[in-house]
Amino acid sequence: MKITVNCAMSADGKIALNSRKQTAISNDLDKRRVHELRNSVDAILVGIGTVLTDDPKLTVNTEYVANPSNPIRIVLDSRGRTPPDAKVLDDQAQTIIITSEECVKEFPNAKTIRSGVGRVDLHRALPILEGMGIGSILVEGGAEVIWSFLKSRLADEMHIFIGSLIIGGDEAPTPAGGEGASSIEDTVELELRNAEVMGDGILLQYEVVK
Amino acid sequence: MKITVNCAMSADGKIALNSRKQTAISNDLDKRRVHELRNSVDAILVGIGTVLTDDPKLTVNTEYVANPSNPIRIVLDSRGRTPPDAKVLDDQAQTIIITSEECVKEFPNAKTIRSGVGRVDLHRALPILEGMGIGSILVEGGAEVIWSFLKSRLADEMHIFIGSLIIGGDEAPTPAGGEGASSIEDTVELELRNAEVMGDGILLQYEVVK
Repeated sequence: MKITVNCAMSADGKIALNSRKQTAISNDLDKRRVHELRNSVDAILVGIGTVLTDDPKLTVNTEYVANPSNPIRIVLDSRGRTPPDAKVLDDQAQTIIITSEECVKEFPNAKTIRSGVGRVDLHRALPILEGMGIGSILVEGGAEVIWSFLKSRLADEMHIFIGSLIIGGDEAPTPAGGEGASSIEDTVELELRNAEVMGDGILLQYEVVK
Repeated sequence: MKITVNCAMSADGKIALNSRKQTAISNDLDKRRVHELRNSVDAILVGIGTVLTDDPKLTVNTEYVANPSNPIRIVLDSRGRTPPDAKVLDDQAQTIIITSEECVKEFPNAKTIRSGVGRVDLHRALPILEGMGIGSILVEGGAEVIWSFLKSRLADEMHIFIGSLIIGGDEAPTPAGGEGASSIEDTVELELRNAEVMGDGILLQYEVVK
């Protein structure tokens, strides 16, 4: 299974304001790239935090891609907190909610997979998704989910669009959150594969060294 | 006066580990660039936080630059907490400590400038430095000092070396900290002037839009 992480950050590594509110970072060229990337994968994955904060649709916008395929939407949601009226539960694409084993919730318009005690166990969940025919996943956030995929070396590639602005803030969220590396040995090594100026920003594409 | 901000961060925007401990981000090509940059300016500036955490020398390493000039070292230190045995107070270069007006401390081997009530007032301090013949300053951190120079549009350029690694961590320091922007209008606009792959990392050079 191929797993790609994608995010857009400011030049000082922020993905939102100090208040955690979203702000414009990406430009139109990057939006087009992300929607084309979405259209090329089997599934798009986010964490419950992203659903609760941003309520994204996670579909391919026809403004950027004509006749888009509709990749499956996956939400990592150990306690089953996805609201029934969340946009990821609309009828625009299939949706899979992955909860922990204790969670008994069901969701309208979505399949549920239960994996892991207390929190979702990615090492168990991914083979289940693979068994459902999902061969590629685009991970779009948030910071804790991205860190989980990177620290466990489950991600193969990381794409980072850097918008030409400074957001600042000690509390502003960054692309990779959670506990983070506790030592230099614990950091995740990347290899820069491509750097491409896109309009007023720049796209960096890395391979995750395993 | 020309003010350049320089920093090295991971691909997820971190300048140190979650524990605030420094980790290797820069590579040898970037270190050479930074020491050449230091050698080209009249002064190198850091905040007291950087002095207390990293105890840097802020001199030009002869490994990278033969017969270096010795730029003046400047510490923003409103309460005068620079320890008498700090490396910035050694005899390798001149040093200026800028404190607030209330501070009565003096430092061995350093001039003291008092400016601003409670905290250093950069808008008052910079003309004093200019009057002393300082025409260019390299700001090297930390996050709060960098944010101060950017938000007030006192910085002219920002150089960011991005090391090919992920550090992660909700608490890990980033290049620009402090309060950060409270709205999109409050973010600091940059213009990307140069992007240059340097060994296993990449250097981005921005102009600050004023």
